[in-house]
Amino acid sequence: MQGIRRGRGAGRGAGRGTVSPSVWDREGDPCRESGGAKDRELLLAAAYVSDAQYNRNVQFETSPQAIRLYHFYNHWTMRAATYFFIWVDLALALFEEPAVFPLPFLVTSIAEVLCLTAFFGRLVHFAKVTPQKVFWKDTKNICVMVTIVLTLIDLVIYASLEAVNIRGVRWSRALRPVFLINFPESRQIRRAFRSIRNTLPDILYVFLLFLFSMMIFSLMALKLFGDRDLRTVEGSPYFTNILDIAFELYVLVTTANSPDVMIPAYELNWWYSLYFIAYIIINTYIFMSVFLAVVYNNYRKHLKNEIHTLAYLKRHKMTEAFNILKVKVGTEFVVKEARWRRLVKVVAPGISSSHLELLLRISDEGQTGHVDKMNFLRLADLLNIRVVAINIKKHPLETWMPRVYQSSTSLLVQKMVQHRIFVWVYDVIILINAIFIALDEKDSLISYAEWLFLSLYIIEILLKLYTYEPSAYFGRKQVDCVLFPARKYNSQQVLDIVLILRILRLLRVIVSIQRFRVIVTTLINIGPTMLTFGGLVLVVYYAFAIIGMEAFHGKVHFLDPGSGSPEAAVCGNPALKDSAFARGRYCKNNFNDLASSLILLTELTVVNQCFALLADGFALVTRQAAKLYFIGFHVVVVILIVNIFIAFILEAFFVAYSLEKSEVETAIEKKIQELGVGVQEEDMKDGGLIDHVDTKDSGFSADEGGNKKRDLRGLYFRIASKKYKTVDTLLQQMFESEIAPEGKDPSLEEILNFSPKKLNFDNSA
Amino acid sequence: MQGIRRGRGAGRGAGRGTVSPSVWDREGDPCRESGGAKDRELLLAAAYVSDAQYNRNVQFETSPQAIRLYHFYNHWTMRAATYFFIWVDLALALFEEPAVFPLPFLVTSIAEVLCLTAFFGRLVHFAKVTPQKVFWKDTKNICVMVTIVLTLIDLVIYASLEAVNIRGVRWSRALRPVFLINFPESRQIRRAFRSIRNTLPDILYVFLLFLFSMMIFSLMALKLFGDRDLRTVEGSPYFTNILDIAFELYVLVTTANSPDVMIPAYELNWWYSLYFIAYIIINTYIFMSVFLAVVYNNYRKHLKNEIHTLAYLKRHKMTEAFNILKVKVGTEFVVKEARWRRLVKVVAPGISSSHLELLLRISDEGQTGHVDKMNFLRLADLLNIRVVAINIKKHPLETWMPRVYQSSTSLLVQKMVQHRIFVWVYDVIILINAIFIALDEKDSLISYAEWLFLSLYIIEILLKLYTYEPSAYFGRKQVDCVLFPARKYNSQQVLDIVLILRILRLLRVIVSIQRFRVIVTTLINIGPTMLTFGGLVLVVYYAFAIIGMEAFHGKVHFLDPGSGSPEAAVCGNPALKDSAFARGRYCKNNFNDLASSLILLTELTVVNQCFALLADGFALVTRQAAKLYFIGFHVVVVILIVNIFIAFILEAFFVAYSLEKSEVETAIEKKIQELGVGVQEEDMKDGGLIDHVDTKDSGFSADEGGNKKRDLRGLYFRIASKKYKTVDTLLQQMFESEIAPEGKDPSLEEILNFSPKKLNFDNSA
Repeated sequence: MQGIRRGRGAGRGAGRGTVSPSVWDREGDPCRESGGAKDRELLLAAAYVSDAQYNRNVQFETSPQAIRLYHFYNHWTMRAATYFFIWVDLALALFEEPAVFPLPFLVTSIAEVLCLTAFFGRLVHFAKVTPQKVFWKDTKNICVMVTIVLTLIDLVIYASLEAVNIRGVRWSRALRPVFLINFPESRQIRRAFRSIRNTLPDILYVFLLFLFSMMIFSLMALKLFGDRDLRTVEGSPYFTNILDIAFELYVLVTTANSPDVMIPAYELNWWYSLYFIAYIIINTYIFMSVFLAVVYNNYRKHLKNEIHTLAYLKRHKMTEAFNILKVKVGTEFVVKEARWRRLVKVVAPGISSSHLELLLRISDEGQTGHVDKMNFLRLADLLNIRVVAINIKKHPLETWMPRVYQSSTSLLVQKMVQHRIFVWVYDVIILINAIFIALDEKDSLISYAEWLFLSLYIIEILLKLYTYEPSAYFGRKQVDCVLFPARKYNSQQVLDIVLILRILRLLRVIVSIQRFRVIVTTLINIGPTMLTFGGLVLVVYYAFAIIGMEAFHGKVHFLDPGSGSPEAAVCGNPALKDSAFARGRYCKNNFNDLASSLILLTELTVVNQCFALLADGFALVTRQAAKLYFIGFHVVVVILIVNIFIAFILEAFFVAYSLEKSEVETAIEKKIQELGVGVQEEDMKDGGLIDHVDTKDSGFSADEGGNKKRDLRGLYFRIASKKYKTVDTLLQQMFESEIAPEGKDPSLEEILNFSPKKLNFDNSA
Repeated sequence: MQGIRRGRGAGRGAGRGTVSPSVWDREGDPCRESGGAKDRELLLAAAYVSDAQYNRNVQFETSPQAIRLYHFYNHWTMRAATYFFIWVDLALALFEEPAVFPLPFLVTSIAEVLCLTAFFGRLVHFAKVTPQKVFWKDTKNICVMVTIVLTLIDLVIYASLEAVNIRGVRWSRALRPVFLINFPESRQIRRAFRSIRNTLPDILYVFLLFLFSMMIFSLMALKLFGDRDLRTVEGSPYFTNILDIAFELYVLVTTANSPDVMIPAYELNWWYSLYFIAYIIINTYIFMSVFLAVVYNNYRKHLKNEIHTLAYLKRHKMTEAFNILKVKVGTEFVVKEARWRRLVKVVAPGISSSHLELLLRISDEGQTGHVDKMNFLRLADLLNIRVVAINIKKHPLETWMPRVYQSSTSLLVQKMVQHRIFVWVYDVIILINAIFIALDEKDSLISYAEWLFLSLYIIEILLKLYTYEPSAYFGRKQVDCVLFPARKYNSQQVLDIVLILRILRLLRVIVSIQRFRVIVTTLINIGPTMLTFGGLVLVVYYAFAIIGMEAFHGKVHFLDPGSGSPEAAVCGNPALKDSAFARGRYCKNNFNDLASSLILLTELTVVNQCFALLADGFALVTRQAAKLYFIGFHVVVVILIVNIFIAFILEAFFVAYSLEKSEVETAIEKKIQELGVGVQEEDMKDGGLIDHVDTKDSGFSADEGGNKKRDLRGLYFRIASKKYKTVDTLLQQMFESEIAPEGKDPSLEEILNFSPKKLNFDNSA
């Protein structure tokens, strides 16, 4: 048997204990994939477990030290530290001129050098756990190194100029988001950027058509209105210059100057409004929808493709690991139980023995003493499923005075508190409280009512503490909301807001209705991935903010309007006299520090009248070319990023709706449940029950179940993240079910050619 | 054979010459389906052709008279007349008080009675060609009748009140769109309405969640800002009343008052802007995307379902027709050629004999003298494909002076004109002309240039007339653009605009690039269906405009600002003194007549600052409740209709992109080409060539091909609408390929149960 295994292993060009470098080549990123796939680690460990001998073909060490180093690289403290330094680096813009909180240049530059050192250290660590060839082929690493060097050069130049009192431009600051994008941890942001890059060609073609349409409309406007000597509301000439017209029409696409832009023509003759209506239908509605369609289509295509590839790559690595460990038993290749145990312990050193047993029972259903290929391939997924072991404790009061606690009155109280109606009654109380908050609080009756509500909430807390086991009760986050007001009662408004947050408890009622549940669950599911967009938006905003600060810093000032000085009325800049910008009190929308810039950019994203006002305002105080900055921002953020965001939400909901229909449950989850039913029927039923109840009454059901089963061994498993999954995980599971279960695996080359365009994967690690 | 056929026919519960009433039950609409399916007519004709005898089971007459009556009902003149009266009826609002062009009540009421008579006549005609039971079951017909009666009652009441000088309310005017919706011709609009109705429940749940989120934010705003004694830019109290806050926050969702609504809080402390940013992310971006997701998901689901059902229903009817006509030959049932010819001639009396031969050759490939079931089922589709017979004529100059025309110089000129570079040169000339138009035209050089361009265009026309056969050249629409300027040269501006329209010729260049072609083709494809949305929007706008006119008529007046009267500055209403409404010169946005109302509603659709201004303005001059009118309009138009519009464009592009990939060509089209190659290879090749060239050089290729093939019989077929199909047709073809080709047809009951909800089809006819 052993011989056959070895023979086969050698036949594949790599003996046991080896991993073909091609896997590394394409997946140079050792960080966990979305959902924390363990396939990479398993492959490493398999090479180690097989006999822990080195082999000429091995591209890297498979010693325990190497695995530990790798482990350490992926350890959460290291990753947290990296993120910490990335954020410190980005936050430096708050303290550098123009600053929100000014700090001397020496302090910020030392902080920056510290960050750069940390990034360099992280890079060196990464180089240690990656084959050299792979490391140098990865553009990410090169990118980070170049940025570190450039930043150092910039720092030195700036400091030297400072020393001789010349003010330089800290241009390298716009490069800071590079660290956020290029560190392996930011896979999601990179994927979003890749998605944008892949969409660009298609967007470009639509954009050209859109420009063509805008050009024709501009020419028509010039000929229709140019000679009529019309005046805008502001009194300036109306539609006389082709460039002005083009800008106004572009702004009309953002709907920012509708209907102001058409008022002069409309006052002349109402037929002219048809021109603008035609323009809006074609350019605002149709073209903007086409942009969305193109972005969404590409997003879906590339997402599907990437996830498809990820799923196959995982399978490929698991197959390699299996081939390293397999022995032939009977007619099929399997992995022996002992070896399997060693492997799991290497990969997950902290695993509890009961968890290990559970996994073994799932992998080795027939208890044959070995794990077959199909079940082995699932190991990475099994290790990724967080299984929670729940200890069922008695209520302390029951331990201290069992007779009183078990008396009929006490039991009645407990039953009452556990009853659904108890929850409903408090929901109604919260609703009434909400209405009281909305009413005028100066009324003394209402302020008494506030005290009444507070007492009711305290009674609720006491009753629940009496009924439920305290550690379980306090373990829930929700408790914070309940206790919060008591601590901070000195501020009436904070109390009110906390009470308003309590209203969120009503979400529970909403979630208990099936139709609402899909929506709320999906909204919660997309939460984590939204952070990706947060990162993406931050990167773009940061770069635009730095540019904006260099270009428009100090042009507009916010002076306290209370002072009554004439300066305040024109935002400290005489060029803004009589402008809509100053009249609308937009002075605080400026580029004088990072926070203001970011808020201004957010306002621009919402495109509205402010878009036109701001563009005009800044064009007044600087140059007309300033408008290009605003149009550029609109194209990048609204046409690209907002559309990708919408596409993402659309896709998330479509996946949610399609899953709602087919009720897809992954094979693994089903198996755990099946097995659970086989091993300890009652327990698992409760587990299921708890999951069920959990969704409806977020909070206390674990103990409800527990109370009933007190006589069982007090430990059962629950899949921690069953209800709430990221969209990625859902998609991955959908595709995994598509992959043929046995033997028909495509080769690595085939996997990597799934992509519609090859460039898709050049940087995919 | 005959016996077997009869036996089978009787076995199905209906002898030959009969059609089971169930087909009528569900498809009471005799109008052609999208793409003009002939299945219904074929079924009727089949019953007639089979032996033209009446049968007890026949629910309707299958005499030539009945078919003629049916034909007449569907004749384009009748349908055009119906539409004419519908539009006249709707347009009456232009002439009734408050009127754009006032007419006495007597005139408008007589016109209205005339329209009602026409609608009634159309209904009677429809009743004649439909089984009674079906007619009375159809809610459409009842609806139209009730509306006719109600309108008459309203007219009588209003006239009586007018006679005694009391001003009544013409409430029935809001019902006028009912005629547009309910006439059988408006199937598409009804489908859009059904789509909305089906989406409503899902939308409602999201809307409730959205309101819940808004409520929480409103309460938070009240507590955060209510006591701070802040003032808005206008100087009114800021965020002190919960209802005002709710309205402001709703408007913020439309982005109409961003960032004005946040300025007072932002000036106090920039941290407060985080509240607004959170609100915008959650309610503007996420919830609005969820609305789109829900609408799109439902749209896709129901569209797929309806088209699936239509495709199956068509097949079902064709199968019934086949069963009526079939005889057994050998082992399979077929329709004899003679009977097939009679059938086609009954259905398409005007068909040319060559066209009939072509169809027969397609249907009876092996020339066996009979048509099998599979080919028979395609007959409706075959009849729907417009086949154009093209006669190839010689150039008149060639006939008159062949030697001169065929001389080497002449041939060189022809070759030059036919060459691609000739087209390119003129594209460049048009581009240069466009740039000249954009420049200042007062310059004398440029006005000389205009003459130069005009001469160049005339030379182009002459050269093309010399090269191409004139009837082919003039047959193209494009010629209009070329000749237009010469006719109307008295007006410089009209000339310029026509020249600008010439720039559209550049679209040709764009279309020749593959990437652009998909976009442009799809945009052109969705054109016809856009009219559906035009109808839908019109119905909603019309109802809102009538209500708005009743509620807000005469509150705001547009007075010539040149007069300088104080009235003009406040739009004739003192309540608007110092309001942003009057300051922004919004006076012309009023409800004083239908045209103004419709334009105002269009502006509201584009939601912008004007939304807030208009809502505030009208709330000032009437009551605060006026805001409800504006919010109601926003919910109906922006959340529902605009999203359906976007969903439609998204779907159209996804279909286009997926077809681009697979290059689906329907079996029939392929067969025509295959057959074409078999029968007259050269001809069909040219046909293909022409289609190809057509896309690139819209216009003159028919003769290019023709010139070369002058010796052939001068007639070949071309599928007229090959490139440009409606989205519906594309979808229908996609689903037809899914339908099993033989024998596995679902029953009528099964077909009608495809729908996820049954109500979907209650009104589907």
